[in-house]
Amino acid sequence: MAAPVIILIEPQLGENIGTCARAMLNCGLTELRLVNPRDGWPSDKARSASSGADSVIDGVKLFDSTEAAIADCDLVYATGARLRHLNLPIDTGEDAAVRVCAAARPAILFGPERTGLHNDDVAKCSRFMTIPLNPEFSSLNIAQAVLLISYLWYRQNGMPEVDQSHRMAKTRPATQGEIEGLMEHLTDELDKANFFTSISKRPSMLLNLRAMFARMEPTEQDVLTLRGIVKTLVLGRRSEKRS
Amino acid sequence: MAAPVIILIEPQLGENIGTCARAMLNCGLTELRLVNPRDGWPSDKARSASSGADSVIDGVKLFDSTEAAIADCDLVYATGARLRHLNLPIDTGEDAAVRVCAAARPAILFGPERTGLHNDDVAKCSRFMTIPLNPEFSSLNIAQAVLLISYLWYRQNGMPEVDQSHRMAKTRPATQGEIEGLMEHLTDELDKANFFTSISKRPSMLLNLRAMFARMEPTEQDVLTLRGIVKTLVLGRRSEKRS
Repeated sequence: MAAPVIILIEPQLGENIGTCARAMLNCGLTELRLVNPRDGWPSDKARSASSGADSVIDGVKLFDSTEAAIADCDLVYATGARLRHLNLPIDTGEDAAVRVCAAARPAILFGPERTGLHNDDVAKCSRFMTIPLNPEFSSLNIAQAVLLISYLWYRQNGMPEVDQSHRMAKTRPATQGEIEGLMEHLTDELDKANFFTSISKRPSMLLNLRAMFARMEPTEQDVLTLRGIVKTLVLGRRSEKRS
Repeated sequence: MAAPVIILIEPQLGENIGTCARAMLNCGLTELRLVNPRDGWPSDKARSASSGADSVIDGVKLFDSTEAAIADCDLVYATGARLRHLNLPIDTGEDAAVRVCAAARPAILFGPERTGLHNDDVAKCSRFMTIPLNPEFSSLNIAQAVLLISYLWYRQNGMPEVDQSHRMAKTRPATQGEIEGLMEHLTDELDKANFFTSISKRPSMLLNLRAMFARMEPTEQDVLTLRGIVKTLVLGRRSEKRS
């Protein structure tokens, strides 16, 4: 599965090229092409704004026409807020991500910051991609557009799982036996302290307590802590009585 | 279904508050709260960077503690690249969006630009949300993080369909009869011009042609244009012969 080439047509600000490079690399995209960047290339502003996405900046390829920039690509997407006066199929970012993942050499075109893509360039594309946003306020900064589209590709391409392992660093989930021990300990003390004033409600109150501990998904250490708390509260109460 | 409140804890740059407001409004979010913004509030830089998201900027509420900012919220998400030394459930942006949509008064917390959320604040939250990105390069600008998370909420909340209507402005999809007419016209001319040099391949070639027109999803006007092209090519050839 090939990653799409990101192509910026006549980008105006070096900073924007840099923030686009950063957004791309956030989502594992590395191939950036520029067609006639207004302020030339290379650009120190772009490198600085990329916040360390040097691999993308170093690999930038420069072209003097859109045709040349897309010549080796198969599926080429135009992007924009809306398609005007052209009959191209329009996909959401999600639908486009599916097609991009299936292509051998896909590319995604972004127009200049002020105007977006000109229709001359849109007409060179296979399809049009738009991200439906708040209809009252849909204008995205170019790096924001690159980020959303790159993210949708990344996600479609199978993003890594969230690593939950550190949650159990130095400990492990409590066993049901340990939770049962906590329940018995707590119930015993609650009974001694006449917590259950209504004996008929005792079973349902205990069930609710048990459900609370289940939702808590306590670790071994959590159970020890909770038993320590119960013990401390009981001893505190007893010493108060004694004093 | 309530939209989440976005809460920025000790944001440093007014520009970033503005670009966060813009990203929120792009996705239909309007409630922005600030806890101790470093450079004070109101902020001209924030308003300018919001690119017209005045409704969000005007509605900003200021708080002097995280506790106060989240006091009226139920489901409160901490955000960050990773959770450290705390045992909170961790959700991807997509999973979190489902939970946020089900909550009555959800909030999402973002930390200061340089450090992200401090654990003191993470511990006040119900859950932790992270967006799994390129593990080698996962640091997002705060407005980029707000955009992705707002977008995932927006999407979960049922984003509007892409408007394809203008594609058929002033025309309509061709009927099957019109496409059939084009096929007959074209086939007739191809036969006359001895296009099908191998008679055995003629049926499959015609089927392929028909499939091409199907994929093209031509409009009424497209069919007229294509028939005009066929006619012109034929006439041109005949006049050439004549000359």
